[in-house]
Amino acid sequence: MTEENRCGAGKVLIVGAGAIGAFYGALLAKAGAEVSVVCRSDYDQVKQHGFLIESHTLGTWTFAPSQVLSNAADYKGTADYVLLCTKVIPSADRVALIRPAVSAETAVVFIQNGVEIEQEMLAAFPDNEIISGLAFICCNRVKPGEILHLAYGRLALGNLPGVVSHKTRQLCELFRQSGIDCTATENIVTERWKKCVWNAPFNPLSVLSGGLPTLDILQSQEDFVRNIMQEICNIAEACGHHLSSHIVNANIENTYAMPLYKTSMLLDYENGHPMETEAILGNAVRAAKRLEVACPHLESVYALMKLRELQLAELHKKYNPQYREPVSHRPDD
Amino acid sequence: MTEENRCGAGKVLIVGAGAIGAFYGALLAKAGAEVSVVCRSDYDQVKQHGFLIESHTLGTWTFAPSQVLSNAADYKGTADYVLLCTKVIPSADRVALIRPAVSAETAVVFIQNGVEIEQEMLAAFPDNEIISGLAFICCNRVKPGEILHLAYGRLALGNLPGVVSHKTRQLCELFRQSGIDCTATENIVTERWKKCVWNAPFNPLSVLSGGLPTLDILQSQEDFVRNIMQEICNIAEACGHHLSSHIVNANIENTYAMPLYKTSMLLDYENGHPMETEAILGNAVRAAKRLEVACPHLESVYALMKLRELQLAELHKKYNPQYREPVSHRPDD
Repeated sequence: MTEENRCGAGKVLIVGAGAIGAFYGALLAKAGAEVSVVCRSDYDQVKQHGFLIESHTLGTWTFAPSQVLSNAADYKGTADYVLLCTKVIPSADRVALIRPAVSAETAVVFIQNGVEIEQEMLAAFPDNEIISGLAFICCNRVKPGEILHLAYGRLALGNLPGVVSHKTRQLCELFRQSGIDCTATENIVTERWKKCVWNAPFNPLSVLSGGLPTLDILQSQEDFVRNIMQEICNIAEACGHHLSSHIVNANIENTYAMPLYKTSMLLDYENGHPMETEAILGNAVRAAKRLEVACPHLESVYALMKLRELQLAELHKKYNPQYREPVSHRPDD
Repeated sequence: MTEENRCGAGKVLIVGAGAIGAFYGALLAKAGAEVSVVCRSDYDQVKQHGFLIESHTLGTWTFAPSQVLSNAADYKGTADYVLLCTKVIPSADRVALIRPAVSAETAVVFIQNGVEIEQEMLAAFPDNEIISGLAFICCNRVKPGEILHLAYGRLALGNLPGVVSHKTRQLCELFRQSGIDCTATENIVTERWKKCVWNAPFNPLSVLSGGLPTLDILQSQEDFVRNIMQEICNIAEACGHHLSSHIVNANIENTYAMPLYKTSMLLDYENGHPMETEAILGNAVRAAKRLEVACPHLESVYALMKLRELQLAELHKKYNPQYREPVSHRPDD
């Protein structure tokens, strides 16, 4: 790594150094950037030993962040990029998580799932460059400070509104130097909708079915899956993002060709973690309502996910001594 | 009980003497009929000791069936009525279960849930009187041969096609003598759709939510529940069964007024028993397709129930040594 690269790379703060954040942070560090991390649950381990990255395609290495922090407010210096890599869930305030580390010159980058998640950032940081990012990757945190990168890794980055800035190109270049495919696109919002075409059916259906892999879902209920996919295309269209008419067929065919696969939402569900129901489904349904696009299948799936989440919350109440077990005293239904 | 009553009552064979069958059989016996039962799982217990019926409203008594059989083919004599009281599930052949005991003079009665469950019986027994029945009752089998009747008990009976025959009136009269409200109706098929307005949302939503009682479902997703109810009304209308425009509101209000309640489908689900998905949802969706009525919310709920059932079936395969656990090796979704 030359000194020139290191200078061009600049300073990066990763907020939410779970599997995705730690992996991409490790890549940027490899490419010469000065990378710090905010991580909460694994703070002690990472502070002492850094991250161990084991990648099936890029080898194994240790990533020792420049600063290991439990809060963005503790960041010393001025970040060129703040990369938010948390899940998008109602309990995590995306703006508050990064605000203390965002200076006038900082580009705010988020590598996160979901649709219509830009406005919150644009509103909170009206004078900063905002870069929206999507990761197509399979990697897991196997234990504190240990990240296993199983496959893929492509990133798509683009500015809001739809342009590609110098800083975005620079970030792309760094990722490419580290061995990862990274695309700069003027249509990052369209890319989000495209990803949502797959996520909107398979993520919730894997949870609501009680854990079926994607192939079983497709083989049993292809029409239902297609209906949800088409509704996402219709909402995207109304939002000004035309998706190719082949996208539904292509997603169906690709999913038939995939090996047995558990969705990320199912993994969250099985591990008792909060799910990205609002970012993926809620935001799409709200966009549909705003633009008066019918999406009854998507709406049904969203309603059922809300019920499932409510039931998970109720389970906790069982330990409350005031809890009454439901009883049957209604005519047989 | 006078001898006259006993003669008028005639001979009844109950097929499927679970909670519902045993309870209504016990009532008919109380009113003077000669009641036999086909019961499989509790055969030994019932053969030796009969049924113990404990009713919160009608007292406690023992019901000693005239014949206790494990198969309808063993029935001796000619039944005036064969009452089928099983759940309506694909694995139980309704016609085969009763055929050996159905003679030319036998009225075929079914006290079962679901819509569009008549045709199968009409086709199988074209020369017999067919009486369709609906029970509004809360009763459980608490252990082999012991039935607990918690509340309600109203029956609606009607012939197919829509008339009320002498035999139906006679059966109604017997039930009334035993202390149970029984209505003879020329619109029993309409009654089935009415019951379905409540069942179609609450039964599957209680299962798919993972066990929420009806009030929680309603408080969280009233619009979704209303959409499903309205779709059932639209399908019923297309089938020639006009339901009052107030039925959706009335069902919503009644459910708000109900105490915490677990649906019968949820109880089946929790006990690992097959669910009446096809009788309640599948038949309604098929009627909608036949008559080209849109029902996207109902369709979604049905598709998800099929996925849930598929997953329950897959769970069994886990014990098969050839089973492969699904793994994640796709770009993060």
